Amino acid sequence: MSGTQTKPLLRTLAGESAARPPWWLMRQAGRYLPEYRALRAQTPDFVSFCLTPSLAAEATLQPIRRFGMDAAILFADILLVPQALGQRLSFSKDGPVLEPIRDVAGLKRLHPERIASCLEPVSKTVCLSRAGLPEQTALIGFAGAAWTVATYMVEGGASKDYRHVKGWAYRDPNGFAALIELIADATIVYLSAQIEAGAEVVQLFDSWAGVLPEAEFSCFVIEPTHRIVKALKARFPAVPIIGFPRGAGLLYQRYATETGVDAVGLDTTAPLHFGRELQRNIAVQGNLDPVTLMVGGPALERTVSAIRAALESGPFIFNLGHGILPQTPPEHVAALAELLSQPLAGR
Amino acid sequence: MSGTQTKPLLRTLAGESAARPPWWLMRQAGRYLPEYRALRAQTPDFVSFCLTPSLAAEATLQPIRRFGMDAAILFADILLVPQALGQRLSFSKDGPVLEPIRDVAGLKRLHPERIASCLEPVSKTVCLSRAGLPEQTALIGFAGAAWTVATYMVEGGASKDYRHVKGWAYRDPNGFAALIELIADATIVYLSAQIEAGAEVVQLFDSWAGVLPEAEFSCFVIEPTHRIVKALKARFPAVPIIGFPRGAGLLYQRYATETGVDAVGLDTTAPLHFGRELQRNIAVQGNLDPVTLMVGGPALERTVSAIRAALESGPFIFNLGHGILPQTPPEHVAALAELLSQPLAGR
Repeated sequence: MSGTQTKPLLRTLAGESAARPPWWLMRQAGRYLPEYRALRAQTPDFVSFCLTPSLAAEATLQPIRRFGMDAAILFADILLVPQALGQRLSFSKDGPVLEPIRDVAGLKRLHPERIASCLEPVSKTVCLSRAGLPEQTALIGFAGAAWTVATYMVEGGASKDYRHVKGWAYRDPNGFAALIELIADATIVYLSAQIEAGAEVVQLFDSWAGVLPEAEFSCFVIEPTHRIVKALKARFPAVPIIGFPRGAGLLYQRYATETGVDAVGLDTTAPLHFGRELQRNIAVQGNLDPVTLMVGGPALERTVSAIRAALESGPFIFNLGHGILPQTPPEHVAALAELLSQPLAGR
Repeated sequence: MSGTQTKPLLRTLAGESAARPPWWLMRQAGRYLPEYRALRAQTPDFVSFCLTPSLAAEATLQPIRRFGMDAAILFADILLVPQALGQRLSFSKDGPVLEPIRDVAGLKRLHPERIASCLEPVSKTVCLSRAGLPEQTALIGFAGAAWTVATYMVEGGASKDYRHVKGWAYRDPNGFAALIELIADATIVYLSAQIEAGAEVVQLFDSWAGVLPEAEFSCFVIEPTHRIVKALKARFPAVPIIGFPRGAGLLYQRYATETGVDAVGLDTTAPLHFGRELQRNIAVQGNLDPVTLMVGGPALERTVSAIRAALESGPFIFNLGHGILPQTPPEHVAALAELLSQPLAGR
């Protein structure tokens, strides 16, 4: 652990306050960057790109070179886990396509024992990325949370109504819990490997946490997240875990209290006074609307100031409330970096 | 108003308690019903179907004949308002398609003065529907709330990221507010006509209320809803208004308190204890997951009991938390009707 406490992101996650908030952006390595698009053009197949350590590490490092965020996030995809489990994965122009698994019998097609070997290239990406980072920049590993990964595995891609995955969960809660547990256990193996390879923080993306009634939110969001957190904390007590249950709304508080995460990512709709309440017990991360960053100008300045004024007095990581939009001009990210490098006016 | 108080839905909205909750289902007239599909097949163009009073009234009445809900909801579409304003509207297999309006200059293409005449067929549908309803069944009129209608008008259809509509709202809040105001005023004209034609309750659907940060939720969800409610209450003080800000999450409480609606529709993710808190001040409606109704069986029985046990002691209208799914077997709706006709076991 020597020296890690000099990295601003890790200091904040350890509960220290700072003159300016550490920052990074969800999907900061991505299509809004011309250098990323050029790199991707070399390997049209997205899964192959993710599993080629030199390319994925280069994508991880690109935004840091340009903007100097306080953290790099591993370039990968949450669907590498289902793919490693044996589910065929491809990407069409409308998004990911998987051969859906819709009942307990389908679990037999999954091979959790393959996770470690299939995802070894990701550990290599972590190694290479860590080696390429400036001294002050932390490296964040990540995985999809079990519920969100399950939605893709059961729906076979993105969904508007989640009727297959919820249908299974409601009709056969025990059978569905077996899938959730399998994904959670695979995620523990995967994230452990990322940490061993050099990830200093991990984030769990629960992008579809906001579609469940409370009872199922307990079973399929809170419980498996707690399971993952508990297992990682047992092995790596010093590695902070950020949970991002996007859209959790009225269930955010329970997530923050019950999962054991060290920091909670707020989406764009979470009121700032609510974030401040959470900060009594936990670090918060968020929550600029990606559209505001796309728009830039006075709207960006105004909103960044409001977020900082509300949250900077507690443990706070500046981020977006959702992934950066491909239409975002890179100059707006540079403007944001400049805004965040200054102490907040009037303080 | 003579006789209205004998209708269970209106009694609940007037604050009376009941032995069993009144119920209806969002999109209860729709594709899950074979008789609806047969009726629709006669007029493939959806807008023409909505604007043919005999057909729309028949669609309105179909679910009542089969299941005897306590309310019929006018068969129409929230996008009839933009269409009446002069925006070209069609429906592809992926959803609605409109010629988008993306700045203040585009407002000149809209003709609010046409609302009353263009939407006269809807008033006729209301008349015909009301005449065809059993004595105990209330008729609900509806419109989209200004924000949700604006999302379609600016995006040109459904959206994943709302970058055009939010982009305009963030870049030029005053210009965008002019669009919101225009829609709100058109909605006042439209709903007034529905009430004059016989609608006994109106519901405002704000399906995309759950994508805005708090500041914009105030300006573009709460303010225009309040504007509509105030105008309708001035003209029709006895007509209850139900607001449904789907996905409002941590902002539900503000919506319930600040808009002036008589009842608030809860989506599927709103915890039941939160609904109970709201009931101290306002009637609540909701919030069965449409997927649970699609699944039926023990999951349906269990969940209906839990919702009733939590909410029946206050002013409560049983409904879904979102529109019924086309894949729902009609027998499951019949089973729900049967469950709701009985007093709750153990009370």
